[in-house]
Amino acid sequence: MAAITKRSEDYSRWYQDVIQAAELAENSQVRGCMVIRPNGYAIWENIQAILDKRFKELGHVNAYFPLLIPKSFLAKEAEHVEGFAKECAIVTHHRLKQVTENGKVTVMPDPASKLDEEYVIRPTSETVIWDSYRKWIQSYRDLPILINQWANVMRWEMRTRMFLRTTEFLWQEGHTAHATAQEGRDETLQMLETYRWFAEEILAMPVIPGVKTANERFAGAQETYSIEAMMQDKKALQAATSHDLGQNFAKAFDVTYQDAEGKVEHVWATSWGMSTRIIGALIMTHSDDDGLVLPPRIAGTKAVIVPIWKNDEEMAQVCEVADKLAADLRPVIGPVHIDKRDKMRPGWKYGEWERKGVPLRIELGPRDLQNEQVMLAARHDRNKQAVPFGELVGAVESELDRIQQDLYERALKRREEATVVIDTWEDFLDLYQNQDGGFAHCHWCGEGACENTIQDKTKVTIRNIPFERDESEGTCVHCDKPSIGRVIFAQAY
Amino acid sequence: MAAITKRSEDYSRWYQDVIQAAELAENSQVRGCMVIRPNGYAIWENIQAILDKRFKELGHVNAYFPLLIPKSFLAKEAEHVEGFAKECAIVTHHRLKQVTENGKVTVMPDPASKLDEEYVIRPTSETVIWDSYRKWIQSYRDLPILINQWANVMRWEMRTRMFLRTTEFLWQEGHTAHATAQEGRDETLQMLETYRWFAEEILAMPVIPGVKTANERFAGAQETYSIEAMMQDKKALQAATSHDLGQNFAKAFDVTYQDAEGKVEHVWATSWGMSTRIIGALIMTHSDDDGLVLPPRIAGTKAVIVPIWKNDEEMAQVCEVADKLAADLRPVIGPVHIDKRDKMRPGWKYGEWERKGVPLRIELGPRDLQNEQVMLAARHDRNKQAVPFGELVGAVESELDRIQQDLYERALKRREEATVVIDTWEDFLDLYQNQDGGFAHCHWCGEGACENTIQDKTKVTIRNIPFERDESEGTCVHCDKPSIGRVIFAQAY
Repeated sequence: MAAITKRSEDYSRWYQDVIQAAELAENSQVRGCMVIRPNGYAIWENIQAILDKRFKELGHVNAYFPLLIPKSFLAKEAEHVEGFAKECAIVTHHRLKQVTENGKVTVMPDPASKLDEEYVIRPTSETVIWDSYRKWIQSYRDLPILINQWANVMRWEMRTRMFLRTTEFLWQEGHTAHATAQEGRDETLQMLETYRWFAEEILAMPVIPGVKTANERFAGAQETYSIEAMMQDKKALQAATSHDLGQNFAKAFDVTYQDAEGKVEHVWATSWGMSTRIIGALIMTHSDDDGLVLPPRIAGTKAVIVPIWKNDEEMAQVCEVADKLAADLRPVIGPVHIDKRDKMRPGWKYGEWERKGVPLRIELGPRDLQNEQVMLAARHDRNKQAVPFGELVGAVESELDRIQQDLYERALKRREEATVVIDTWEDFLDLYQNQDGGFAHCHWCGEGACENTIQDKTKVTIRNIPFERDESEGTCVHCDKPSIGRVIFAQAY
Repeated sequence: MAAITKRSEDYSRWYQDVIQAAELAENSQVRGCMVIRPNGYAIWENIQAILDKRFKELGHVNAYFPLLIPKSFLAKEAEHVEGFAKECAIVTHHRLKQVTENGKVTVMPDPASKLDEEYVIRPTSETVIWDSYRKWIQSYRDLPILINQWANVMRWEMRTRMFLRTTEFLWQEGHTAHATAQEGRDETLQMLETYRWFAEEILAMPVIPGVKTANERFAGAQETYSIEAMMQDKKALQAATSHDLGQNFAKAFDVTYQDAEGKVEHVWATSWGMSTRIIGALIMTHSDDDGLVLPPRIAGTKAVIVPIWKNDEEMAQVCEVADKLAADLRPVIGPVHIDKRDKMRPGWKYGEWERKGVPLRIELGPRDLQNEQVMLAARHDRNKQAVPFGELVGAVESELDRIQQDLYERALKRREEATVVIDTWEDFLDLYQNQDGGFAHCHWCGEGACENTIQDKTKVTIRNIPFERDESEGTCVHCDKPSIGRVIFAQAY
């Protein structure tokens, strides 16, 4: 087990080390693609289960659309193709043939299998989905369509980083169709609020909901909304987006409906997504120099019981009680693991479960057995307490609640301490070039060109225009033109 | 709503019509790829939930491996590449560029983005997974590895048919690594038994477990096992496979482990999968000329309540009771839908839910309200019975059990009636050329060449060598050479 680099030493290396130490994922030999290992995938399964249930409560159903998109589909929406053409995997042949090169047998695309029309591996599915919606929608009675898809998508990123930016990633993409602009807007905001709820209540990750600037809009959207989180290095991370697509895709794919009065109009659309990127955000929000830290609500294993023994007789005794305690806990808190591995010292086991981010450890040795108690240890703050057997379930429940709450508050405090209000370009440069950066609430003129110049000069971008913002008038932090309110600047992943 | 073609008229057309009528799936504009619509995907979600739970009970965990496979990986296992090279989607470029052709803007692969090594979209993941396993396995302590993956895969099929054979399909693929040949064999058979259990107990689909002939083995396997079902047109359908891969992939990817005595050996492997193909089998096993029929254990909606009213007052009354009855039923039987749509006659609603395969219909009108009873109607055999409100939950439970059991027995009877023992080539030809075909238990010499000749002459193949078979000696039904037992012949999907 290699040591984990300290955050203060090399934050980026620390992130990689935590992923390795907790066995969450690893790079594959496929360019920019990662292997999501069982520990990492268990987090994704929990994310899926919780989001999927919530989506369904809101009336959505799941479906599945093709992986491949005819290149002509992409080209139908002008901004969309502009946004995605430069980074997509293109399928051009459908057969390999074996050839002998210098006496070695190898395979190459069979020229005779060249496709008439190339396909792109979906970078997102608007085009292929709206091609189906055209067939499904005739009348107002067919609306709304509230569909979600769990899928893999691919964007040929030049610089990749596990979870945060990978060529292939897993996500859910919601695609809805509505009879009015208002319904579309309502859906867009409802789903953004769903992501905010999920980030804050489940992942214990404070986020700022708001609207993206025109420069940062999804390719083909009328308006893009996001939730923005702050990582421990004070950089921002866009945790999810929700797009009001207006009638852009309905027009590109000619999807119309007849309303109750017989009038024919184009349909209104939204799309929204959260991806495996959020696991990167989760790691960066809570973890520490000893490894992964997970909020209890998203942790696959809520607690691990480590029985301690010196001989076979003791082993049998503590394991019997451990089984009993686990059986009491599971119906109330969910998965509990008992680490009965032989030939490993308790201290070694503690370290492993700390690296892997199990929120609570329950230690149980022969002396505890005599005293009819266990030692309860929280992963994130090392808080330890002795708890009598009879009070264990209640104590574990309230300790898990405390951990969940604590992690949220810790992250919120960190964000607040790294958030400033800045009014001059001098202070802005000082913050991002001499100091550690963070979130800066600044006035901005509203012009994309100015936004681009700021980015070129400092790599700092506008994260979003938060819903809750200071709307007093002022002058742009960069160009001094008039501004009607502050936006959030930050360096971002 | 187009009428459903009768099975007796055109079985293949009937199958397509049922899929359309129940809104399960549709063809897309992507060659050979289907869109799985919400009603179809709900079946897949239930399949996933039940199988996934079972896999985990057996100690498996989920992970995720890359969609793309470097072509050199495929080439490492000689039989494997032979089996999959001829039908795979090949990624050759990573960027589209916009070009103007005859004044029209279009997109084409940017020649400057040609990849150094082409990728294949996974037709199955053995190669990319075993490339990871090499890094994960050093010692016997790292074994067994029991991993499953839920994923999409792609095989460039020339002739496609919705669910049964599509270019892209969804599946689960288990990939396990073991320290001994025996453990590998045990795992292979355990997973085959899991599929048999799932097909028979959940899908009410009788299947015959057995071993495939060498000709029909998975490319790279030492032994392939299958479960074979019979469709209503008496054709066979391979419902799932489980492969004993021996040390083939461990050798191709150089995966070794050190045993407790320090000896280094190659690892033993298995793989096993069930795909969306099973939904095609499910449709073909139970459905009838009125549409989809689903066994209750796999149906998304277990029962639909259709309230009947003539005026607003009646509507309020019956809907109130319908809500109450649904609330009583849901905790016991699962999802219950109440069809409160206005402007549709009850008879029209009955037809729709029959087409969509909801196992039970509960009719509730004003007169039923007076009598404090409902009318319960089973989808598959039209059995109707009046049930007092107070007895509803119990009656629905036992009716769902009866339906599940009945569907299994009906399918089993159908299979038994279409299964014969045949000893002469004359009778064999008569069965498949003059009569309807079916399953024929015949002696076979054991030679692949003879098997191929039979297939060339009649399109009939050996489905498997069943575990439970007549092992008396005899002579091959085709070539008269000696045989040590009977195998199952059939035409197959």
